[in-house]
Amino acid sequence: MHGLIGKMRAVEGRRDELIAILLEGVAGMPGCLSYVVAKDPADADAIWITEVWDSEESHKASLALPSVKDAISRGRPLIAGFDSHVVTEPVGGHGLTASAAP
Amino acid sequence: MHGLIGKMRAVEGRRDELIAILLEGVAGMPGCLSYVVAKDPADADAIWITEVWDSEESHKASLALPSVKDAISRGRPLIAGFDSHVVTEPVGGHGLTASAAP
Repeated sequence: MHGLIGKMRAVEGRRDELIAILLEGVAGMPGCLSYVVAKDPADADAIWITEVWDSEESHKASLALPSVKDAISRGRPLIAGFDSHVVTEPVGGHGLTASAAP
Repeated sequence: MHGLIGKMRAVEGRRDELIAILLEGVAGMPGCLSYVVAKDPADADAIWITEVWDSEESHKASLALPSVKDAISRGRPLIAGFDSHVVTEPVGGHGLTASAAP
């Protein structure tokens, strides 16, 4: 499995708008086992995204899905920057669920 | 929802053993919506744990479950330390699944 833990910074005051776009693109991504979007309660502009994919290839392929490309293009103007980005190797747990086909 | 993103350091060479204990305790925790254990591919002793709970109270209550207390007592000697610990406020995504009762 392939995992990502990232902290993203929204343009001031636009976090909720950016989160809504991030969540729209989430359904039906082949190979996506978990994708959680969270607010940082200690930082009004920060968003945490934690992802688990069956493989790195599935994650890369997702970036070419029309729904994801559309979300990226709408979300990009609302992103002020990325604070951290960690690649992980998930080994198990609870809540790892194959996504239904779109 | 209540989320946690933590980086734990295993005693040198004991990471796989610690991961096995962490994964054993995962099933049947009431209110647990996601619990993912991952290796850090860049750091041979590091483990990432990402959790989503329906509430902070459910997370606190889980620490009193016999299975979790047992895992904590067996895992503790294998933990060298905690590198980071972030509380998040998950708002949605894919793979958030109520755990079956034990």
